Amino acid sequence: VVLELYVAESAGERHSDLTAAASRVGVPVRSAPDRAVAELSDTVTPQGVLAVCGAVDVGLDAALSGTPRLVVVADQVRDPGNLGSLIRCADAFGADAVLISADSVEAYNPKTVRASTGSLFHLPLVLDADLEPAVDHCRSAGLSVLGADGRADDALDELDRSGTLARPTAWVLGNEAWGLPAGHAALLDRLVRVPLYGRAESLNLSTAAAVLLYASATAQRRAASAAQTASQGGRPAS
Amino acid sequence: VVLELYVAESAGERHSDLTAAASRVGVPVRSAPDRAVAELSDTVTPQGVLAVCGAVDVGLDAALSGTPRLVVVADQVRDPGNLGSLIRCADAFGADAVLISADSVEAYNPKTVRASTGSLFHLPLVLDADLEPAVDHCRSAGLSVLGADGRADDALDELDRSGTLARPTAWVLGNEAWGLPAGHAALLDRLVRVPLYGRAESLNLSTAAAVLLYASATAQRRAASAAQTASQGGRPAS
Repeated sequence: VVLELYVAESAGERHSDLTAAASRVGVPVRSAPDRAVAELSDTVTPQGVLAVCGAVDVGLDAALSGTPRLVVVADQVRDPGNLGSLIRCADAFGADAVLISADSVEAYNPKTVRASTGSLFHLPLVLDADLEPAVDHCRSAGLSVLGADGRADDALDELDRSGTLARPTAWVLGNEAWGLPAGHAALLDRLVRVPLYGRAESLNLSTAAAVLLYASATAQRRAASAAQTASQGGRPAS
Repeated sequence: VVLELYVAESAGERHSDLTAAASRVGVPVRSAPDRAVAELSDTVTPQGVLAVCGAVDVGLDAALSGTPRLVVVADQVRDPGNLGSLIRCADAFGADAVLISADSVEAYNPKTVRASTGSLFHLPLVLDADLEPAVDHCRSAGLSVLGADGRADDALDELDRSGTLARPTAWVLGNEAWGLPAGHAALLDRLVRVPLYGRAESLNLSTAAAVLLYASATAQRRAASAAQTASQGGRPAS
């Protein structure tokens, strides 16, 4: 993915491990004036190293090949930090792919890349994913398509207890301010809310996503482990 | 809590509901030049209304009076947005109090207040809470004191299955970069990690907190509901 590495003159020693690793795999490493690196970087205190990378996104077919069990769909997510944090959560809980709608923030926005803390490079990303074909593809791949909605009747913990969460699932997360528009919600199998017990009216996008993905990933692994135990004649797996 | 309300001259109509509500409860509402309100506000696009508020924090004894079941302890949390988001999550999952160490960011930092989206006013906050007395108070109040640590042996989902999470719990969350120092971790009953299944090395503070608090709150309610069913002779609660 990395095509070229630029290192600020004064930061060369600090990044010697990185530049050695890049050289070993044939990535050209170039020294550049500090000012040039600082100008190309958009952080206040740049780390002194910049990589030119190729695009990492893939098509819907490639992202959903095999037998995906957990997929995240970002529908009109507009804040770059939120999208990056969402990609990080998807990676953390072992999602197979992240599909991002065309009217979401750019996945290659520098803030999104930084907030993903490397997860952008860890799992297949699909850009410009229109919701209708994305949902169709997910269903064809055997996934239930659930939408996150704070006003939904179904609560996450009830779905967990009923065994519904153990199914292969695509989670659709809508916009930070207005959620999933009615026309989009109508495309999905079910809307689900994270149960809230206090006086906060909502969670923010990435904390809601973390809870949904943790619950799904854990329910799936618990079910798989129970199935394995059952297939061994009811004895606990060793 | 609100002592005075200042409304920008050009924003008066937009906030008429708010100013009427303030007047009804005897809060003085004052009109101020737009420039003055903008200068006092620290956002790029201020909403045109400012409230002068009294402090809302309370002492440890007051915060942990009664029979708390879920408490959050922020130990050396330095990012204002993270602390605000943590308070919002604590509120969302019905926590009884948030204790904040003296070396954490100020709870009244404007970014913390905004990130809490009102939750700062929803549950008791303790400032300057040294970890040792905070842990002692939590134990005296009947709480297990668990620390979040990405390298811990015990995984959250295992604790959930074993019934441990259903106990009244105080969750201690450490610094964004270095977590809980060894000396602080040693004060706690147990360290717990959120299970990660992908290639991401960690979650950020607020997403980890959301998962921990969701799991605790849900486990406690599940156990309470099971106990109620059992006390009714095994029939499901109507």
